[in-house]
Parts: sequence; C-alpha cells; structure tokens
Amino acid sequence: MSDTIFTIGRQYGSGGRIIGKKLAEDLGIPFYDKELLTIAARESGFCEEIFETHDEKPTSSFLYSLVMGGYGSDSMPLNHKLFLAQFETIKKIAKQGPCVIIGRCADYALEEMDNVVNVFVHADMEQRVKRVVEEYGEDPKKAEDIIAKTDKKRASYYNYYSDKKWGCADTYNLSIDSGKIGIDNAVELIKTFAVMAKK
Amino acid sequence: MSDTIFTIGRQYGSGGRIIGKKLAEDLGIPFYDKELLTIAARESGFCEEIFETHDEKPTSSFLYSLVMGGYGSDSMPLNHKLFLAQFETIKKIAKQGPCVIIGRCADYALEEMDNVVNVFVHADMEQRVKRVVEEYGEDPKKAEDIIAKTDKKRASYYNYYSDKKWGCADTYNLSIDSGKIGIDNAVELIKTFAVMAKK
Repeated sequence: MSDTIFTIGRQYGSGGRIIGKKLAEDLGIPFYDKELLTIAARESGFCEEIFETHDEKPTSSFLYSLVMGGYGSDSMPLNHKLFLAQFETIKKIAKQGPCVIIGRCADYALEEMDNVVNVFVHADMEQRVKRVVEEYGEDPKKAEDIIAKTDKKRASYYNYYSDKKWGCADTYNLSIDSGKIGIDNAVELIKTFAVMAKK
Repeated sequence: MSDTIFTIGRQYGSGGRIIGKKLAEDLGIPFYDKELLTIAARESGFCEEIFETHDEKPTSSFLYSLVMGGYGSDSMPLNHKLFLAQFETIKKIAKQGPCVIIGRCADYALEEMDNVVNVFVHADMEQRVKRVVEEYGEDPKKAEDIIAKTDKKRASYYNYYSDKKWGCADTYNLSIDSGKIGIDNAVELIKTFAVMAKK
C-alpha cells in the first residue's frame, strides 16, 4: 500500500471528503481537495478565483463546444482550459508519490497508472441530509434539494470529461455505503482493500 | 455477522457467484442461486422448467403489462407470477436465518430487513472475458458479446422489478472490483464489511 494513490468520488453528504482526509492522516500522505485548485492556478497562470468559480461545475453542452470550433489554444472555452490545467496538475502530483485526491475526475486523469485505488463513497438520503444539516450547516428544508443538485453537477462534470459514469459501481475499484459502517470503518476498509490490491 | 444475510449482484464473468459460494462455505451458511428456482417452483406449483426459462430474463415492456390489464390473478403475465413466487421464496428463506443469495433482486425483496448486506461484484472486461472463456468454456470470439448481453438482461430484469438501478454504486452497500483484489480477498473484504456493519 506504501505507494498507493487513492482517488475518492463521493455523493454530497456521504462523508467521502472526511474519509479521504482521515485516510491521508492515517497513512501520513498528502491530501488534495480544493488544494488542487491553488496548485493548478499557480502553475497555469490563471487566477485562483476563476478555478473556484468553475470547480466541478458542468461545462456548457457538447454541442456548444462543437460550435466553439476546433479548440486551437485560443478558441478553447475557459472551462476546458481550466479542466486541462487541473488534469495536468493531478498527473504531476500523482508522480510525486502516494496521496489522496478528492473528486475532480482524478481517477480518469490517472487511469494509466497501476498503483491507484479508485473509491466511491455513498450513503442513503436520510443520512446525507443529517450530515449536511449538522456538519455543513445547510437549511434542513433545502438539504435534500441541495444534495440532489450538487450530485447532479458532479455527475455532469464527471460524465462530460471522462469516459466512465459517475456513481456506477464499475467506474471504481471499491464503493462503500458509509452510512452502513461509519466513517472510521470506511477508512479501515479502504486501507484493507489497498493492501489486498498490492498482493 | 452471525445473523447477516448477504445478497450478491454481479457482472457476468466477475466471479460474483463463486465469491458468494466461498463466502457461504466459510461462514457455514446456506447458498442460494438456481436452488431458489427449485424451491420457488415447489412452493408455487409451477413446474421448474418454466422458472429456468424465465430466470433473470427481462419481461415484456411495461406498456405490454399495462395493456395486459389490471393484474387480477388470472390476467397477470406468467413472467410476473414467476417473479412474485421467487420474491416470496426469497423473503421466506431470509426469515429462516443467515444465507447468501445470488442475483434475482434479492436485495429488493429484503429491503425491509436490517441484517442484510447487499454486495455488487464487477471486474474489467478483459478479466471477465478471461474467466468466461477459461472457466465457463465460452467461445473467445463471442465472449465479449455474451457478457454484454447477459449483463443487459440482468439489468433489465432488475430495473424492471426493483426501484433501484442495477450496477449503480448506491444500490448496494459494498461494490468490489474482483479483478483488482481476486476472489479470496473479495470474500474476506465482504466478511470484514459485515462485521463493521454490526458494530
């Protein structure tokens, strides 16, 4: 497991981010979430605010992209330039050693590498509502709607840029219902899986 | 874990069935696959051959079902009668104690029960082709096609009868890429998950 790179996709409110953070802490390896945006911004010359505005948001439709033309470096829409900058940053980071990367099509960016374990974390709606209300401070009345919209955006972004489908079991090596076993057990299960994958 | 019921959905060629069989052997609990058909047939009064012909095959379209009318016991299409017989058998079996059930919407039949762990097993196409050729004796030239068609049938059957989606991570509690860790490790991982789910 010592050189494993973990990518974690997650439903909003499933605890996927905190699972990734604990996993990185346990293993003493770097954790990348929003940090990726800062690095990508620094390296690409775009300002960080632009990345934040576009982070994991779906781009315009494919049709729009086609209309935009052949993607010379000048004609490529900003969304795509930002995606590519982040994509390159993810690949660069992964070459530096083991780490945990949350979201942002990291599994797709690293699909050529062998030492990657791709994880998806989900939970039932009731538990996700509880988490986003209690821990992220969302309005209880709007929680379910916010969850659905956030996941829809994540799925659109992922499905647009990758050749797999967000949330489908066979897009990942391991998918876990965090509501069934809890955050700490999910961390342990991912570690167990990574050891098994190295055998 | 001592009273856990395991349901296992699986991509064709992923080794999901053998994982379920080994899991049942390890835990000393009953294993149900085609056996379910025999029991359902015995209890329903239909002959076993009819169940085999319709096993995990998609039914006619929903439109057809509507056209068939209001489903009085006489007007219900045979497919649905067989499904319901199997559905009842699964619920009856689960009440008798811990077991492993392969496919057949068992997770949906048992969704009211707490002590159930729903697993999905998948693997990449290359490894599934290898398995169906080497172990099931399929024609190498046709293997990929057979796999795609079998999974399409399973998905249609599952999606028709349940309210969830076959192969989606959040339909199950745990989804495993058996190609990444192998059959025996997958069995161990499921056992580990079940212990965690009981804590």
